[in-house]
Amino acid sequence: MSDGLAGEAAALDAADVLRAKRAEFVLDGGDGSEGAAGAEGTVYLDGNSLGALPRAVPGRLADVVAREWGQLRIRSWAESGWWTAPERTGDRIGRIVGAAPGQVVAGDSTSVNVFKAVVAAIRLAEEDGGGRDEVLVDAATFPTDGYIAESAARMTGCRIRAVEAGDIARAAGPRTAVALVNHVDYRTGRLHDLPGTTAAVHATGARVVWDLCHSAGALPVGLDAHGVDLAVGCTYKYLNGGPGSPAYLYVRRDLQPRFDTPLPGWNSHADPFGMSPGYTPADGSPRGRVGTPDILSLLALDAALDVWDGVDLTAVRAKSLALTDFFLRCVDAYVPAGKAGPLTPAAHAERGSQVSLRCASGAAAVMAELARRGVVGDFRRPDVLRFGFTPLYTRFADAEHAARVLAEVLGR
Amino acid sequence: MSDGLAGEAAALDAADVLRAKRAEFVLDGGDGSEGAAGAEGTVYLDGNSLGALPRAVPGRLADVVAREWGQLRIRSWAESGWWTAPERTGDRIGRIVGAAPGQVVAGDSTSVNVFKAVVAAIRLAEEDGGGRDEVLVDAATFPTDGYIAESAARMTGCRIRAVEAGDIARAAGPRTAVALVNHVDYRTGRLHDLPGTTAAVHATGARVVWDLCHSAGALPVGLDAHGVDLAVGCTYKYLNGGPGSPAYLYVRRDLQPRFDTPLPGWNSHADPFGMSPGYTPADGSPRGRVGTPDILSLLALDAALDVWDGVDLTAVRAKSLALTDFFLRCVDAYVPAGKAGPLTPAAHAERGSQVSLRCASGAAAVMAELARRGVVGDFRRPDVLRFGFTPLYTRFADAEHAARVLAEVLGR
Repeated sequence: MSDGLAGEAAALDAADVLRAKRAEFVLDGGDGSEGAAGAEGTVYLDGNSLGALPRAVPGRLADVVAREWGQLRIRSWAESGWWTAPERTGDRIGRIVGAAPGQVVAGDSTSVNVFKAVVAAIRLAEEDGGGRDEVLVDAATFPTDGYIAESAARMTGCRIRAVEAGDIARAAGPRTAVALVNHVDYRTGRLHDLPGTTAAVHATGARVVWDLCHSAGALPVGLDAHGVDLAVGCTYKYLNGGPGSPAYLYVRRDLQPRFDTPLPGWNSHADPFGMSPGYTPADGSPRGRVGTPDILSLLALDAALDVWDGVDLTAVRAKSLALTDFFLRCVDAYVPAGKAGPLTPAAHAERGSQVSLRCASGAAAVMAELARRGVVGDFRRPDVLRFGFTPLYTRFADAEHAARVLAEVLGR
Repeated sequence: MSDGLAGEAAALDAADVLRAKRAEFVLDGGDGSEGAAGAEGTVYLDGNSLGALPRAVPGRLADVVAREWGQLRIRSWAESGWWTAPERTGDRIGRIVGAAPGQVVAGDSTSVNVFKAVVAAIRLAEEDGGGRDEVLVDAATFPTDGYIAESAARMTGCRIRAVEAGDIARAAGPRTAVALVNHVDYRTGRLHDLPGTTAAVHATGARVVWDLCHSAGALPVGLDAHGVDLAVGCTYKYLNGGPGSPAYLYVRRDLQPRFDTPLPGWNSHADPFGMSPGYTPADGSPRGRVGTPDILSLLALDAALDVWDGVDLTAVRAKSLALTDFFLRCVDAYVPAGKAGPLTPAAHAERGSQVSLRCASGAAAVMAELARRGVVGDFRRPDVLRFGFTPLYTRFADAEHAARVLAEVLGR
């Protein structure tokens, strides 16, 4: 059975329309031309936590440091395009998440952007009238979203109500100002219904903020197409921007003139170098900026986004589903019954680009042993093994290899 | 007269106890061993806007990218010390601003840190009781501080009152919750009285937040010694951390248990990987963290701070004053009367490490022409020429040369 799946993996890799993309990343196990995965090193299935290094980054960053900072110094704010990098990079992210130019700006952390988005959405609701004072949050949210939403509610006189993401559509009502929902659950890998939830929340007159951390770069998001109000996300997972690379904020174009930020830093001023004591917000996506952007991290991200040029997100999604389907089949075939089973839904419409397995016992030790044997995923308390599948560089052979090693570790 | 001052510059450079530091930076005009400044290139007097590149940075950052990210990937959060970099780097900044370890954390922008500090200070005042609802801000503040303070006041039911920084001590009263003051005015280079203002504000029962952007690395600040409550600052000026490098937040140790942040991101949780739905703040400086830090920018900053190892801030201050005194003498000697005169105070106790000149006409064009002739300062509307003197790398010969070229441009 093992030979069958390994052979199938080789055939799937040979037919993969995205296979050439792997060569644009620094990975063990070569550029995709080898047959067996992992023979030369690590199989990296943790790109849903920290994406692998794109080959374009080191050279570009070295040039930013040595020439743009070291030689041009202050002139680079204008001459090297530093000042406009947040919106320029934002537009590149926009293409990946289905946003037309001028609506996404890169900068700050996801947490800080959640704060901007939730407070701004509450203020939109206030302006719309009707006494809406409820902030709905997805009960299984990545914790920071919940903590920040709680702070946003506290500072605006609202209250938080936590419900399962799948119930947000039903829970929203006349008191709801905004719902903050994760597109893909970080723990289970469950994909939530963005179009349906957005429409349902809108039908009650409320706003919705989507957290795209675990979906951007893994599947088509369609922010514009589905009329999303605001969205945030990080760039260090499937977008491969590097550790802690700048996050982003999407504000739908028609809402931008009403976007009233709680963090009106000088970079979001209509005339930042006017140094005016009064705040006048900029038009467009720069209204979501705050202070001086981390240029080194931001330009590393910009270089990392080169790998997306010409990439069709439909192909990415197709490969992602094929990879996770295949991994689930391998796990089912190799792993002894009762040792570990999928937490991630089987239905494609409910699956992101990771597979989470609930491990019957000793999950942390199992993941540590997997890493020792060259298969890198991660562990989430109390019993979850997470494996991320980055369609641009993960091979079917990697999936087969990881399942095989997992079965060995679990004592086949 | 010109020969006299040039000769004096050479003597001052020869006697400079910090002269060896210049070789640790990438600058035109060699490593400090030449006699005449600027002969080979630019005289850079804009380190008060963007510090020059420390030589340690490119190699360190290349290693972070290629090895820590590219090879170790996710393991680097633990094995390369990424997770603790904000507080580790914060402690290094702490030494420069007079804060004992455990009170400074690096991350986010100055604007975001102003928001944390001002809101937290207002909450301290609320907790202390007495109905304090006034936020005093320095009327000539760098704009972002004022905008953010206004937002903090709006979100906490306070009101803003702007007064001259020198009048803050007198203006503070029983309604004052917090005063937000710039240690050095970005436009004029005026140094404000940190010990006296802090003591006066404290005497009214209010808190004080200092913005150290233009003083950190230019003079001893003495945060602990003067009992400052909270402070923020950037690291891309005299600390040479690179464009938009992470800012920092100081919370005095005894206030940390009461520091109630408006941005409770998961990095500030007591058990961040517990992924608990409830927020429990960390102890110590990590309580000031928010989301995942920009590691590339942060570790570039960390490398940049190497130049401070063993540096005595008293010597830095002595050289800074000597440099600005000397530059003012050169300007007085060379520049035709009425063309440009100092805006920066003559008194040492009122001077930071920059000299601002008010230009009688065409300031923007004058600064552009200076740059064309290899003297880089900057222009602030409507009529200010700013020249920054970074004691670690600026030579007396640079000051003399800049004044001479300025006189030429102003049509001696």
